[in-house]
Amino acid sequence: MPDSTPALSRPDDAAPPSVCRWAVLMEYDGRGFVGWQRQKTTGLLSIQGLLEDAATRLTNGHDVRSITAGRTDAGVHASGQVAHLDFPADVTLSSATVRDGLNFYMKPHPVVVLMARPVLPQWNARFSAISRAYRYRILNRAARPALEDGQVWHVRAPLDVDGMRQAAAHLLGRHDFTSFRATACQARSPVRTLDRLDVKREGEYVVIEAAARSFLHHQVRNMAGTLKLVGEGRWEPAQVAHALAACDRRAAGPTAPPEGLCLTGVGYAENPFSR
Amino acid sequence: MPDSTPALSRPDDAAPPSVCRWAVLMEYDGRGFVGWQRQKTTGLLSIQGLLEDAATRLTNGHDVRSITAGRTDAGVHASGQVAHLDFPADVTLSSATVRDGLNFYMKPHPVVVLMARPVLPQWNARFSAISRAYRYRILNRAARPALEDGQVWHVRAPLDVDGMRQAAAHLLGRHDFTSFRATACQARSPVRTLDRLDVKREGEYVVIEAAARSFLHHQVRNMAGTLKLVGEGRWEPAQVAHALAACDRRAAGPTAPPEGLCLTGVGYAENPFSR
Repeated sequence: MPDSTPALSRPDDAAPPSVCRWAVLMEYDGRGFVGWQRQKTTGLLSIQGLLEDAATRLTNGHDVRSITAGRTDAGVHASGQVAHLDFPADVTLSSATVRDGLNFYMKPHPVVVLMARPVLPQWNARFSAISRAYRYRILNRAARPALEDGQVWHVRAPLDVDGMRQAAAHLLGRHDFTSFRATACQARSPVRTLDRLDVKREGEYVVIEAAARSFLHHQVRNMAGTLKLVGEGRWEPAQVAHALAACDRRAAGPTAPPEGLCLTGVGYAENPFSR
Repeated sequence: MPDSTPALSRPDDAAPPSVCRWAVLMEYDGRGFVGWQRQKTTGLLSIQGLLEDAATRLTNGHDVRSITAGRTDAGVHASGQVAHLDFPADVTLSSATVRDGLNFYMKPHPVVVLMARPVLPQWNARFSAISRAYRYRILNRAARPALEDGQVWHVRAPLDVDGMRQAAAHLLGRHDFTSFRATACQARSPVRTLDRLDVKREGEYVVIEAAARSFLHHQVRNMAGTLKLVGEGRWEPAQVAHALAACDRRAAGPTAPPEGLCLTGVGYAENPFSR
């Protein structure tokens, strides 16, 4: 039996000794993808599938699997996604070669590895992550986007950013976020601690920055869709507190579209990309 | 004879009394277009053609012509382009209707009117302009662009921004810019006054901001392509002064690609969009 066989029954959070684990920092445009996660249906393009297929080609045919910090939905972008890949230990490559090689094989798709770093087998892109940061951008003007079509949510009505900021304050901290999770969300607990939910105007944009140790499925988009109701004056800021307390998805606002959302960063106690 | 007939022989810079002149502020993604200028060959998509055809539809079939402040090349973008359109005087529309109507007819192309304003017949988008501002953006990192593919120039080698800034200083002011104009440039004089040529680093980007009363054909891209040689250390900053003095296109660097260039604004003594 080869050394790697027992690893198949191991938990995801440690690499078997026969592999070399690589962390990758990624940027992508989520349009045209079914999302991060590889689908069983053939012909559907996923970020994960693209990355793993590139890794397989880079390692001359080895079946390389990846684990990510955030399984982004279809149409959602990333400027600071993190994943890890387990290469066979006998494949010795430099950080620059892993980055450039993966990028070469992912061409011409709008997905790139910004940095690649070897990590200890205990390090795990998903389970070692201690924070996730997302940015939701609204283009708030009459004209539809021309330069950023597909990368912002276009909202015509002028939004009241002060009201949105007041509403956002009600969501900060540790809560049962049932009202803001997708009904299909598979997380065991609906309780999360929201560390940051800033709303600011930047010229024609209204930018929402959210950070937490982890988020529920659709949580950022559901919060953005609800804050937009406040920005339009259709909801009072305090209604967001009532929606949260209701612990019922129907009590909160609609899910904002994916194109405004971008995973901007993942935090680690030991950040492989800072060295 | 209708009133409008004599107008056909008038110079471009005044509207005949039978028309209502509209100024439009525009944003567009230049990819997929042959540039601003309408081409005689059918099947080639130009920004001008798209705008004029939309204006014709908005005015129920009138043949509407436009004049622009800057005839951008194929692949060049704009966030603050200005043009004017002459509508028949009997077509009375509000500013919001002109903006929204033109945008409706230009769908789904990545071209939009941000603002539309009625102007006096003497006001001319081209001849009343007293300044043009362009931004040239270089994405200076190893990985190709994923989120901004087609909207930046990708340069892998780390650029020396201080050297580029020293080089840019040699180009400021009034000069014969023959070395930096396209050989096909049709301007009568190669003399221009460059009011601004700033180079700064913004994270992974190197951004060049240029402003002048007017520019020669390809001038900003030729300056950007030359500054990049300095940034790579292939040229000393002082070589840019020698290239300028040579008054010979072959003395300067290559033309930077169109995708990094964006027309960001046009200045007027009477700015129709500030009211």
